[in-house]
Amino acid sequence: MSKGERTRQQLIEKAAGLFNQRGYEATSIADVMAATGLQKGGVYRHFDSKEELTLAAFDYAVGVMRERFVDALSRVSEPVDRLRAIIKVYERIPLDPPVPGGCPMLNAAVEADDTNPLLRQRAVSVMDDMRRVIKRAVRDGVQAKTIQQHVAPDTVAVVFICTLEGAIMMSKLYGNQSAMRLAVRHLEQYLESIMAA
Amino acid sequence: MSKGERTRQQLIEKAAGLFNQRGYEATSIADVMAATGLQKGGVYRHFDSKEELTLAAFDYAVGVMRERFVDALSRVSEPVDRLRAIIKVYERIPLDPPVPGGCPMLNAAVEADDTNPLLRQRAVSVMDDMRRVIKRAVRDGVQAKTIQQHVAPDTVAVVFICTLEGAIMMSKLYGNQSAMRLAVRHLEQYLESIMAA
Repeated sequence: MSKGERTRQQLIEKAAGLFNQRGYEATSIADVMAATGLQKGGVYRHFDSKEELTLAAFDYAVGVMRERFVDALSRVSEPVDRLRAIIKVYERIPLDPPVPGGCPMLNAAVEADDTNPLLRQRAVSVMDDMRRVIKRAVRDGVQAKTIQQHVAPDTVAVVFICTLEGAIMMSKLYGNQSAMRLAVRHLEQYLESIMAA
Repeated sequence: MSKGERTRQQLIEKAAGLFNQRGYEATSIADVMAATGLQKGGVYRHFDSKEELTLAAFDYAVGVMRERFVDALSRVSEPVDRLRAIIKVYERIPLDPPVPGGCPMLNAAVEADDTNPLLRQRAVSVMDDMRRVIKRAVRDGVQAKTIQQHVAPDTVAVVFICTLEGAIMMSKLYGNQSAMRLAVRHLEQYLESIMAA
């Protein structure tokens, strides 16, 4: 990596933490300059606009999250184990977020839904990917007869994501894992309830 | 209501919609002035600081939400029906939010967890109230033997809130009710599963 590439990468990482904690709109370029020690020209050498930096930072944060899922899913092969692995990756987010501030998809979704169409589109596409991963595991489980035949893959995907993202919100609000632990136990029971006998 | 009181009330209502859509930190007093047609002096006649306006606007938005719950709960008395009524009130939020921008508790929680201790404290206290209402219904149901004896009230409260707030996030992100509908169906089945036979 050249020095310029390293600076660009550090800029994205720092900005991702700021945006994810304080919000994309609430964080100014001056905040990014203060956090990175770069001058304005140093920031704009790498990004033409704050918007471009915003999207690069979101993509970076999501990329860290994605690596965790890929890594966890590479260790298991049975469909039900893949679903359990997804729960485990989520469970860790409030305690050990991919970048400071919690789940980048949750934060971007809640911030962007009414105000930032480009960031919202990015969040939709990440959410779609997450749903696909869960749906595929459910479909494979149905085919392998470890999950009951009548179970609708997208229902499982939505129930998982709603419950886990809501639990991240609650656990971060209270500053402890107790909501997340209850949510995880609930999903484990839900998973039992859809497994084939 | 005096003219001054009316102006103050309109200011709070407009600000609540702006804050709930764009975020508390991302919305400036200039944005509030533009939305209300008030001059800076007109805003600061009623509030000493943006922070004071922020908290008044959050309390107002939560108050509208609370009225919906009080109204829905006044129409039913059986504990299980109270739980169903709570689900129904949540189900309506993405389509018809109490103030523009969705659920004020979700938005404030996600924004304030890392950055705004006072707003965060307000969100915690609203969350605690919501948990209490659900826990009381579960306890009453256990006592009335319509809910199984082993069911832990706080588990139900956390499962309800995580699932429904997560569903608001998803439904608002996609701009449709499909995630919310799946989440509601899931909670109705969960409710069936904890009811006494």
